[in-house]
Amino acid sequence: MNIPLIIETEPVTYIIGDKALERSEVKLNKYKRIIVITDENVEKLCLHVFRRKLPSINIDGVIIMKSGEENKNIQQLTHIWNELTKLNADRDDLIINLGGGVVTDIGGMAAATFKRGIQFINFPTTLLGMVDASIGGKTGIDFEGYKNQVGLFVNPKCVVIDPIFLLTLEDLQWQSGFAEVLKYCMILDKDLWGKLEGRNYKTVDDWNRVIIKSAKDKIDIVRSDTLEKGIRKNLNFGHTIGHALETHYLNSYSPVTHGKAIAAGMICEAWLSAQIFNIECSCLNRIISMIDNNFQRFDLLPEDIPVIVELMQQDKKVRDKKQNFSLLKKLGKAVHEVEVEEKLIIESLEFYINRKSCK
Amino acid sequence: MNIPLIIETEPVTYIIGDKALERSEVKLNKYKRIIVITDENVEKLCLHVFRRKLPSINIDGVIIMKSGEENKNIQQLTHIWNELTKLNADRDDLIINLGGGVVTDIGGMAAATFKRGIQFINFPTTLLGMVDASIGGKTGIDFEGYKNQVGLFVNPKCVVIDPIFLLTLEDLQWQSGFAEVLKYCMILDKDLWGKLEGRNYKTVDDWNRVIIKSAKDKIDIVRSDTLEKGIRKNLNFGHTIGHALETHYLNSYSPVTHGKAIAAGMICEAWLSAQIFNIECSCLNRIISMIDNNFQRFDLLPEDIPVIVELMQQDKKVRDKKQNFSLLKKLGKAVHEVEVEEKLIIESLEFYINRKSCK
Repeated sequence: MNIPLIIETEPVTYIIGDKALERSEVKLNKYKRIIVITDENVEKLCLHVFRRKLPSINIDGVIIMKSGEENKNIQQLTHIWNELTKLNADRDDLIINLGGGVVTDIGGMAAATFKRGIQFINFPTTLLGMVDASIGGKTGIDFEGYKNQVGLFVNPKCVVIDPIFLLTLEDLQWQSGFAEVLKYCMILDKDLWGKLEGRNYKTVDDWNRVIIKSAKDKIDIVRSDTLEKGIRKNLNFGHTIGHALETHYLNSYSPVTHGKAIAAGMICEAWLSAQIFNIECSCLNRIISMIDNNFQRFDLLPEDIPVIVELMQQDKKVRDKKQNFSLLKKLGKAVHEVEVEEKLIIESLEFYINRKSCK
Repeated sequence: MNIPLIIETEPVTYIIGDKALERSEVKLNKYKRIIVITDENVEKLCLHVFRRKLPSINIDGVIIMKSGEENKNIQQLTHIWNELTKLNADRDDLIINLGGGVVTDIGGMAAATFKRGIQFINFPTTLLGMVDASIGGKTGIDFEGYKNQVGLFVNPKCVVIDPIFLLTLEDLQWQSGFAEVLKYCMILDKDLWGKLEGRNYKTVDDWNRVIIKSAKDKIDIVRSDTLEKGIRKNLNFGHTIGHALETHYLNSYSPVTHGKAIAAGMICEAWLSAQIFNIECSCLNRIISMIDNNFQRFDLLPEDIPVIVELMQQDKKVRDKKQNFSLLKKLGKAVHEVEVEEKLIIESLEFYINRKSCK
């Protein structure tokens, strides 16, 4: 008995740009009850905006989690399940995840696992959330010091990206999201690179266009490879070393922004790309200078290197214990599943620490 | 941007009957590493059988959870995630869930959520596991006193049902699984009912055939309705009241077997069926006598009734706060989404307590 099974999942709707909030009303008013998951900061800064822009939408419950990557954990997940139980949430209700990447990651997992699955809609409120975390169905929590160690792929019904929330952002949050924008430029969007090269995130003025372009870049990739079997892996450029760095700082020093860790990862991995695919020095130096122009480097010590290399072994992309990278073939084009030996990884971190440029 | 998304999930393979273990070898030897999740009892009773029948299969790690429904909880789930982290499990490994319904439920959830999804194969070792729990992709844990409050639908790669493990079962476990067998008879398999009527689970001799028939009954239903949108709901006959009873005993007295709770639920819900669909007294009495012939009744008190009714409100099948039942239209045919008012539910529990027969 070999049973072919086809599940046709419903499409995800993306509503992006000015007045996205208002335009989402039609998606919301078909649910009996609406429960919002958010964090303490976003509740203060953004919930009233949501209510003001959508006066006809009745919110039946607000679940507030602690903010910050250090709270993307089993305790907060359990807290949300608990609150959903108290609210007697059921499969006809809708959950709204209102917040940055931490809220959409953990809120998506909570929704998808409560009573074996309640539908949810993401309303990202940070730049990082808008161009990356809210799109693509990756949900999860950190566990035992490993980022996103536990979670699942599950798509929201809808993602509503309204730049109005950007007005609430602090400098660090702008910067953090900008790392992912730069990543899209480098792996697939030379046009956007052209618009941004030489700029600092503080001097970008047409954010609406940058967000729409970046979000579309990500959507195009995830719709053609939902489960990260192929081309979606390109999105991991900068993240193999970047995640390990982020984890290392979370465990050993103090949390850093995702963007700052990814920026560092991109310098290392651009250097690896140059070694393996013979990218010209001038091009590598342009990439490094664009990143350094936006992100201060970490004061990494040589003794941090073995710890970071060890952490990379737990990466979800590690298959058969081989370290596979997504690297740049050239500026604007990435390739995945490039095997890199440990020696070269260590050298890339030394290159980063010594602030060398390519000659 | 409205993006149609089709995920073609891979088919589930079912290997059922004599020498199923041996025949599963071909499914196992393509994985790099194999990790077994089991409980302390099954490890003692069944793991050596697995090893003996599959000498070529190398087991790279064994994760042992505490046995029993009272341990189908977040603590044991976290324990498994922890052990998987220590074993550095990755997406190319295979997880084997070896055990009864608790192991396949929690092991399936652990596998599906570790690093966003590791493939798993169920090897049920109890009658209940073989004819019900291991089939259909429902995974999860109990939470805050509610059964299966947290979990997800996710299919194993394969389900291997080998009656050899039945030799390890205790009397109570036989009995518990038999309730689900009787359920299949009542909702869709009059042929099997004919073979079993008048028998007690202790006097059944052709278990192989009963298991193959029951497992096929369940597979036929879940393959046509994976996500429980329609006909699969028929499987809930006896479970709306049965689950509430099971939860009530777990919370207030001491755990009872799933089968005993479902047996009681089926008496109540058969009575409801009779009221709503005018089933003849003689038929209702045959059903009740078949159940009573196999299961001792609970000593429920009238004051238990409101607690049980309240627990039913948290059932995952409750939509819009209405209590929908799957009931019998006649012996061998069920219908779902029958709305029943609270007064009648209370009367069905009184009918059960007073041990009345239909006249």
